[in-house]
This record gives sequence, C-alpha cells and structure tokens, in this order.
Amino acid sequence: MRAGSTHSDVAVVGGGIIGLVTAWRAAQRGLSTTVIDPEPGGGAARVAAGMLAAVTELHYGEEALLALNLASSARYPDFVAELEKASGQETGYRPCGTLAVALDADDRAHLRELHALQQRCGLESQWLTGRECRRLEPMLAPSVRGGLRIDADHQTDPRRLATALLLACERAGVVFRRAAAAELTVERGRAAGVRLDDGTRAEAGQTVLAAGSWTSRLAGVPEGLLPPVRPVKGQVLRLRMPRRDGTYGPFLSRTVRAVVRGGSVYLVPRANGELVIGATSEELGWDTTVTAGGVYELLRDAHELAPGVTELPLTETSAGLRPATPDNAPVIGPTALPDLRLAAGHYRNGVLLTPVTGDAMGELLATGELPEVARAFTPERFGGDEAALPSAQVPYGSEQSKHGEPQERSA
Amino acid sequence: MRAGSTHSDVAVVGGGIIGLVTAWRAAQRGLSTTVIDPEPGGGAARVAAGMLAAVTELHYGEEALLALNLASSARYPDFVAELEKASGQETGYRPCGTLAVALDADDRAHLRELHALQQRCGLESQWLTGRECRRLEPMLAPSVRGGLRIDADHQTDPRRLATALLLACERAGVVFRRAAAAELTVERGRAAGVRLDDGTRAEAGQTVLAAGSWTSRLAGVPEGLLPPVRPVKGQVLRLRMPRRDGTYGPFLSRTVRAVVRGGSVYLVPRANGELVIGATSEELGWDTTVTAGGVYELLRDAHELAPGVTELPLTETSAGLRPATPDNAPVIGPTALPDLRLAAGHYRNGVLLTPVTGDAMGELLATGELPEVARAFTPERFGGDEAALPSAQVPYGSEQSKHGEPQERSA
Repeated sequence: MRAGSTHSDVAVVGGGIIGLVTAWRAAQRGLSTTVIDPEPGGGAARVAAGMLAAVTELHYGEEALLALNLASSARYPDFVAELEKASGQETGYRPCGTLAVALDADDRAHLRELHALQQRCGLESQWLTGRECRRLEPMLAPSVRGGLRIDADHQTDPRRLATALLLACERAGVVFRRAAAAELTVERGRAAGVRLDDGTRAEAGQTVLAAGSWTSRLAGVPEGLLPPVRPVKGQVLRLRMPRRDGTYGPFLSRTVRAVVRGGSVYLVPRANGELVIGATSEELGWDTTVTAGGVYELLRDAHELAPGVTELPLTETSAGLRPATPDNAPVIGPTALPDLRLAAGHYRNGVLLTPVTGDAMGELLATGELPEVARAFTPERFGGDEAALPSAQVPYGSEQSKHGEPQERSA
Repeated sequence: MRAGSTHSDVAVVGGGIIGLVTAWRAAQRGLSTTVIDPEPGGGAARVAAGMLAAVTELHYGEEALLALNLASSARYPDFVAELEKASGQETGYRPCGTLAVALDADDRAHLRELHALQQRCGLESQWLTGRECRRLEPMLAPSVRGGLRIDADHQTDPRRLATALLLACERAGVVFRRAAAAELTVERGRAAGVRLDDGTRAEAGQTVLAAGSWTSRLAGVPEGLLPPVRPVKGQVLRLRMPRRDGTYGPFLSRTVRAVVRGGSVYLVPRANGELVIGATSEELGWDTTVTAGGVYELLRDAHELAPGVTELPLTETSAGLRPATPDNAPVIGPTALPDLRLAAGHYRNGVLLTPVTGDAMGELLATGELPEVARAFTPERFGGDEAALPSAQVPYGSEQSKHGEPQERSA
C-alpha cells in the first residue's frame, strides 16, 4: 500500500446524508468503513427544507416509490431516536403534519385529484375548506380556497441530521478521508476503491458511490455502467419567525405548501424559529447561483400564501442540486461491476429516504443481499451496460443483470 | 493625562465617510486629529448605492440644499482625483449619468413636474419618449413610457470611497482610536473631547460629532443642544452583471431609477460589474434587519423596470440607517457649546456631500470660519437650546446663536 493510502472493507464516495447513513450502518455491522469527501456533512442537505412528504408528494405512476417513501417515513421516529442517542445530537425531527392549500380554482381541482389518488392508495388526508385551513393556520391568506390536511407528513432539519450522522459515524469508527475522489480503481474486473485527488488511494473490498448529482461523473467507471443522475437546482430561503409566548407557533405550526403559477412553494417552520421557504426547480446543470429571479419568485409566492412573511427577517439564501434519475426514484444496490454499489439519485426525497437507504445499504454491504423493500430500485432497471465491462469481468449477481438495452427515459 | 488617553487638536466622533473626510481635511491643515470609532470606514456608506443625484433628487422647497448638492457635485472630479492620489486607492467614481423613467401615466406626470422644476432651477435634463429610453438602455421594460435623461448625475462606490478616505487619513497622520465614544467631556463650559467605552479619554481642542444617526445619542451633550437626527432604514441588494465583450455595458450603462408604487427604486451599475438595487425607506428606529418584504419589494420593482434582472446572481442583501434631520438637510458647523462642532444628518446625500462637507469642516476647524456655501446648514437653524448650557458658558460664535424657540418640523 502506498504512503497515505488506506484499506477498508467499505469505501463510501460522498459524505452527504446518504453516504453518511450508509457508512454508519456499515460500521454498525462490523465493517471497517471509510468516507471520501472534501467536506463531509455537506451536499444537498445543507440546502434542503427537510420535508418528509411521502403522502403529499404522491404522483401518478410512482406507486413503487410511494411504498419506499412510506417505509422510510414509518422508520423515522425509531431512526431519529437511535441516531440522536448514538450521536448525542438532536436532528430537529418535528412531527407537525402538513397542510397543502389551493389559491384558485385550478389549484383546488389539482388538490382534489391528489386527494382522490391518496384515497385510492389507502393514504389518510382530510379535505378542508378555506375557513378550516385558516382556523388551523391563521397566517394563511384570505385567498386560500381549501386544502388537504396530511397529518402523517412531518419534517426534520437536514443540517442537524447531517451533523448527527457525521458524529454517529465518527463514534462508530468510520474513517474520513477529507479529499475528493478522482477515479474509481478497477482491479481484475472488480471495483477496488478510489484514487483521491491528493494521489493517495482508498482501497476497499466494496465501493459505494453516494455522491448525489456527481455520482455518474466519477472517472474510471466503465462507460454506460451507471444510470444518468442529473442535477436539478433548487433555491431556498431562510427566514426567522418571531418568538411569542415561548413558542414559534403563532406564525405557522406545520408545513404549509401550495402550487403557485405551476411551481411548488412550501413554508417549513422549524421548532427553533427558522422558517424555510423552498424551492425553485431549475434544469441548469451544475449552476448553484442564487439569482434575483429565484429569490423574487419564492418571496412572491410565499407572500401570496401567507402575507405576513414579509415582516420576517430574511437570514439566508442558498441553492443546491437535487440528484435526479430518469424516473425520479433513487438507485440503490449493486451494479454490473462486481463490488461497486450505488446509493444515489434520491432527487426530492433524500431526507425522507435516509433511514430506509441506510438499512438497505447496511444489509447489502454486510450480507450481499438487498432487502425486499429496496429491490425495485436497483440500477438494473435502467440497464447497466455490461458490454462496457472488460471481457474478463463476471457481472456481480448475474441474476440481477439480465437487462436489455439501456432505457433512456426523460423525467 | 490618564494612561491610554490621548490629546489632539481635533477629535472626530464617527469614522464614516463624513467623519473621515473631516479628519482628512483637518490633518491636511496641520491639525493633529483623532478619529474615534470601533470600526472606522463602516457606517451607512457600507450599504449606500452611491448615487450623486443633485439634479434627479431635486424637491420643492429644498432650493438651499440644491445649491449645496450642486456645489459638492461640481467638486467631485477634483475631489476624487486628489483622494485617489493621496490614498493610492480607486473610488469607483463613474460619470455615467442617470435616466429616471416612468412606468405609468401618474409616474409620467410626476416626472414632467420634476422636469419643469429642474428647468426653473436652471438645471439640464432632457425629456425622452419610452422608445428613446429603451434605445439608451435596451434592458428597460416595454412598459417604460418616458423618462428624463440627466447627464450630470453620476455615481461612486461608497465602500471604495470609505476605504480611500481611511487610507488617506492614515497617510495624513490621523490617529484612530478603535473604541466607541461613551460620553462627551465638557470642561469649563467647553467641549474637551470624549471619554471612550474602554475608560480612556480622547482629549481635544475641538470636538466634532460626525456619528450619523447616532450623533444625537452621545451622553454628556447638554440636552436640547443638538438637532434631532433620526435613522431612516434602507434595504439594498447587490447583484452581479454578466461580463460581455470586456465591459458590463450590455446590462445597464447608467443609473436607472423610477418611482414604483410610491417608492423610489434605482439600479446603479458599477464599472466592476456590481449592480446595486435600492432602496426601501423605513422609519423603524435602530432596526437594521433585512426583511423578506424589503427584498421582495426591491426585486419586484426592479423586475418591473428591467425584467432581465431576474437572471442575475443576487450576491448580497443589507440594510443601513440614513441619518435624517427634520428638514432633510445636513447639519454642518459650530454648536452653542464652545469647541463642539457638528457634521451629520446627511440623510440621502452623504456620499454626494462628502467633498463639500470635508472642505467646509476643514476650513471651520482651521480658521473658525464656516465657508459661505455651508452657512445655511448650521445647527442654529433648528434652535440650539442655550438655556441648557451651564450658566458659566459663553456660546461659541454668539452671532450665530441668535435663535428663538426650537422649531420642531417633521419631515
């Protein structure tokens, strides 16, 4: 082994919340684990609002993803309890529920459809009149015409979650290599870790790519092996709610959201007084600029939803990149290259899917078997290009690799 | 003299641009000079847009202020040349002119009145149709219905100006005491410097209060002596213009401004690519919070003026306090307390009035005589309450102190 290089059972490329939960779960299984990231604990979670919106973000044709989202949502209370104990750090988990409201007749028709779809899927939500919405949340605009009360969709603070995962990893013995992964190393037809940009290596028995939007950009990965993961920019604002009577309840007590002019806007009130307003959705490549237009639209739409937001201090503007796959669902599991695993592409659901992804990846790394709940989300569904592999290679888990041509679907 | 205390000919309380230019001019006259400020070079200039808008900001009934503004505007090129040479630092002075536009019939009527008033005052400005406005500035909205071209109103970068003044002061031998002034010291009926919050003293033959909005809050000043100076909050945004063909011209080439929904909005394009959007005007005491509503209104109004601003990166939001007097004009000159001088209350015109204020204060401090140009702006016009002075005191410059009851005028 070269000077400065390390060897471990598992090397995780990417220290965002998905990489960290994977590393934590692997270390708990007794696997020696290394995380490679110049700034672990960063990534999209530094920007994300942290809605746990399995029921609210239900879309036609995404029933498989719904099952995964619900499974992760159900695990959240236990996951948070375990993580907070392991890390000694709060995660800001707040079981506050969500209110999705409509500002005009079109919005209301759209929400009615969502309500019907939720009922067909056996999900609980309650239709409220505009007056009932304002009784729940008095800061809502008089123009709110109705809404859906979804008591199962909660929130957590992704920054605190990331910090807690980082501490839990450290306490579980995970090693952090604070450098960028430059290239996957492939030896004898198997993934063998990565070369870092400082010239050293992180060698490993199993290598996990969990680098969010950057996942499919790592050099050294055989072409066509990975599904495309593309960045979808989101701009987010942070405001501060006034403290009254010892709580922040008087401004908003639960997540409030709406579709305004075709874009989704949500207001997520934290227990610590932070009010997060998100988010734009922009296909602009790797750009993470906060623009005048993004901030303007968020403020305009939030003002329409709850006019009182204009009184609140604006404390932060930021932009992050959601890692999106062609079908909006994550890729979790083995790849056609032996010893290379994937946990990426969580798009809008990274915070929600952290518990189930950690459990699935821990199981896969420890036993070689992916749990049933995650099997619909292996990279295989996009077709991993075996032809791209060196002829000497035997695809890992060949029963999972009977795929045809790569399917290119646009979202 | 106590340990840590200093004595100088002149002590200037406040290291904003007005305090700094006063200190620089005093030092140039051979007076030993001390500036007292925890953060010299800060103050309202850190936020201000830096418009030099003598002609554009003409108001009915402010003809005296117009004369002072024009005098300072005329001195700007020489002032900048001298300051840049003395400091070795650029000031961002940009003789680019201003275009004031109207977005509806009311705005146009308002601008027509301003045009007539300007003509009566012998000022140059040119009426343009909406099409002519867009020919000058192609980024303007199609809804622009006309405007006034004012080629004499330029801009400078107040942050660079403050830095240049700081360097010029240091090079001229000005001493900086980086602490807050706690109390004016009055000895034998005369101002004798200030006590600092670290317990030391800055003793001086002449004491200048140049602390912007804080000027009338200094302890130890006889009650009723100073005119009221109140803070008027302004929120300001900074955007970044794209660089094309080696210049930033393609976005905006001059200051563009309008009155939108009763509030003034202006876009000030710097030579270095910064685009400053200002400003709210809020009477909220000492609050300097950046609010969601302030940012929203500026972006909304700027977007109405030049829709393309939404594409630009938003790099900074900030809020500052304009020091306003009851008649919107500065207070420059002696007070009824011997050896106490004032240079404050410059409200919207601090950057513009920096050259003439420096010249007037330098002359006053060196010779005891205020130049003709500044004589209409002594504190005397508000009535300095001599009755508040200890009976032993002989008012300084008694010919300037024949005043009656304090006049309380609200702006």
